[in-house]
Amino acid sequence: MARFMGKTEPDTVEHVAGNGLLHRRALLERGAAFAGALGIGAGVNVTGAAAEPLAEADWSLATGDPVPAYQTPSQFAKNVVRTLSNPNFEPRTSQSRTPHQLLDGMITPNGVFFTIIHDGIPKIDPSKHELLIHGLVKRPLIFTYEALLRYPMTSRIAFIECGGNSAGLFSPQPLQTDVQGLHGLVSCAEWTGVKLSTLLEETGIDPKARWFIGEGADAAHVMRSIPLAKGLDDTIIALYQNGEPLMPGNGYPMRLLLPGYEGNMNIKYLRRIKLLPEPAFSYWESQVYTEPLPSGKAYQFYFVNEVKSFITKPSPGSNLTQPGLYEISGIAYSGKGRISKVLVSADGGQSWGEAAMQEPVLSMAFTRFRMPWQWNGGAAVLQSRAWDEDGNAQPTRAQFITARGELPSVPPLLAFENHHFNAITSWAVDQKGQVTHVYA
Amino acid sequence: MARFMGKTEPDTVEHVAGNGLLHRRALLERGAAFAGALGIGAGVNVTGAAAEPLAEADWSLATGDPVPAYQTPSQFAKNVVRTLSNPNFEPRTSQSRTPHQLLDGMITPNGVFFTIIHDGIPKIDPSKHELLIHGLVKRPLIFTYEALLRYPMTSRIAFIECGGNSAGLFSPQPLQTDVQGLHGLVSCAEWTGVKLSTLLEETGIDPKARWFIGEGADAAHVMRSIPLAKGLDDTIIALYQNGEPLMPGNGYPMRLLLPGYEGNMNIKYLRRIKLLPEPAFSYWESQVYTEPLPSGKAYQFYFVNEVKSFITKPSPGSNLTQPGLYEISGIAYSGKGRISKVLVSADGGQSWGEAAMQEPVLSMAFTRFRMPWQWNGGAAVLQSRAWDEDGNAQPTRAQFITARGELPSVPPLLAFENHHFNAITSWAVDQKGQVTHVYA
Repeated sequence: MARFMGKTEPDTVEHVAGNGLLHRRALLERGAAFAGALGIGAGVNVTGAAAEPLAEADWSLATGDPVPAYQTPSQFAKNVVRTLSNPNFEPRTSQSRTPHQLLDGMITPNGVFFTIIHDGIPKIDPSKHELLIHGLVKRPLIFTYEALLRYPMTSRIAFIECGGNSAGLFSPQPLQTDVQGLHGLVSCAEWTGVKLSTLLEETGIDPKARWFIGEGADAAHVMRSIPLAKGLDDTIIALYQNGEPLMPGNGYPMRLLLPGYEGNMNIKYLRRIKLLPEPAFSYWESQVYTEPLPSGKAYQFYFVNEVKSFITKPSPGSNLTQPGLYEISGIAYSGKGRISKVLVSADGGQSWGEAAMQEPVLSMAFTRFRMPWQWNGGAAVLQSRAWDEDGNAQPTRAQFITARGELPSVPPLLAFENHHFNAITSWAVDQKGQVTHVYA
Repeated sequence: MARFMGKTEPDTVEHVAGNGLLHRRALLERGAAFAGALGIGAGVNVTGAAAEPLAEADWSLATGDPVPAYQTPSQFAKNVVRTLSNPNFEPRTSQSRTPHQLLDGMITPNGVFFTIIHDGIPKIDPSKHELLIHGLVKRPLIFTYEALLRYPMTSRIAFIECGGNSAGLFSPQPLQTDVQGLHGLVSCAEWTGVKLSTLLEETGIDPKARWFIGEGADAAHVMRSIPLAKGLDDTIIALYQNGEPLMPGNGYPMRLLLPGYEGNMNIKYLRRIKLLPEPAFSYWESQVYTEPLPSGKAYQFYFVNEVKSFITKPSPGSNLTQPGLYEISGIAYSGKGRISKVLVSADGGQSWGEAAMQEPVLSMAFTRFRMPWQWNGGAAVLQSRAWDEDGNAQPTRAQFITARGELPSVPPLLAFENHHFNAITSWAVDQKGQVTHVYA
């Protein structure tokens, strides 16, 4: 990072960094300076006379469709769906990826919240599902779904990210795919449920307990060891996702929510919690979510999804049509707290300007950032870089690869070989407006 | 309101108002005082030996279902849907109501966001839909959907409430239905779109313009006059709802969002905006959304949904099974800003305690409130009452009816006779734990 030019507060819209980046205040004000002075000019001029009648489309002239009890997207938005890694449902893990390049805001709607499914989605009858809390407790207890609904609830907006999200960026060559293909294994929702601490007050805790293992009720029986301190801090047994009961792919009827901790630890279809004196070293944590480091040591028991950001617009697949004013927009998040700052570069990291952050900026939730950009029709390399309130900066890819290693040969989009890639993503824009994934 | 007892900050959980209301801090802390001292005790005791194996359900032993591109709720949550006022789709308005008694949190998921549909849901092809801005502008412009996607976006979480929500409470006798039936025509989502002010900077504004009329592209062609000051303040052309493109019932591909203003003014399927020197007195505003007051004047051009709250849990249909600790939970909102305070009563308004408000508390958005309650098995009348930062208090029903009039005979759930009911709702709990709607 060569320079940071976003600190001044000029009276008019000004360039805050190289290659056309404008001051973020243009987005926050009434728009006079932005649209008036610079002019996106995407509207088509009409004469007043021609405008008045405006042709009636078919849908303006006839009764429309009936109202369903549960509504789903328009047939014209049928591309705004998850991509499936295993569309023929072969006997292996199925990933479904959120189409971030087609979304905006901080909430991921339930229909396209990402999922990792190891052995199909179980059809769990909540009236027959039980949650057992046992091990180093004073009295083991079983909680039914109905019983949990009696308890005090808490809500929070939080992202969940698969440890394998963005694994394609370990590849020595930049994979040519879109945001969904590269970063689609992270989503953000409002979760509501019962604090685990409330239930542990009822079971009591043996003083020897330091960890607990959570286990899912699906056929994969995912099990992960979690520090008891996290369980007593902000862990909840989530029952609701964006207001409604959890989606079947996201753990219906109940899951662990460990804010900021990697996805697979947020055990779906939660069935048992056992308090332990030490980690259980389950298959899922000692084999699947462990890998060798260049130093020869193992990378294991990494929990927190570190500070990260990426640009969703423009991005590969959404090409620029003509020089002019564009909004650069994207997502930033950190498992260690609130996002404190997002910088954007249009010249591959030579200069940076500060992006506007959409309120509310919440701890361990998506923060949508926006940056006005005047594209002059020349080549550009767009990057975003985030900081969190814990003082962590998103690393460059070069820094990251030095520490974590590059995979000599990565099958495209492989998710379970390398984990927790959180470095800067770069999009090149060429003189035709084509956007591609590059390393810069 | 006889007394307000919520101001003290005791060291232990204490009763803050009559008939079992407890201090809200019990919900905010680790739960020791709450669960430990009072004991919901909904968990079932098991012996450690019996606990260890825990019977395997069918879904734990076999591969589950394939992963869909767009996921929808579990078949076991099929009751968590909207109720339809016109299930046979007869040629009249169709209302669909949000099942608040089965939801929790502040976000209404897109599948069950309420809708009022006057003439069916149009199947609009966004590539053929146009938005015209004309009238008292310097140059009329047409914006395509693609063009709007180029503009800077803004996001906010905001409720939308039908002017006819809660109209059943004008009835002289309390209607025996649930929260969905009484208050289901309000929902809350994150909306993202383009500020109307940005587009008006491009068209320019004739100094004579004071109002604008918005028109929908569906067959009903709903038109409403809106003060231009609102259009230049916080009005957006919304394109996204909870992150994804708008639902077909909520205005796909674009709608007006007028934060805090009654639902029908937030024109769906937005097609034309015409700037005017005065209101247009359209059919929709002079006939449909106008009614006589007891004073003989007309109640018309009321825009803002006033401060309001209601309890969703417990509520009719969710009866209490046994004496003990319960969470009273509900929703509060105001079209005039943030909710500043919610009080809850368990004795029909004789005494009140302050509820906990779930963060983030946002302007013109749902605020979820929670209150711990020790039900002693006796009769109780539960009420909530909200205040907003503008200084407005939710009225009692008696105060409200004095000002607005009572309908001598209300067909159940009629939505278009009386509007903007925002008074206190009362739920009676009897000694069997049955919850019913009462006037108190």
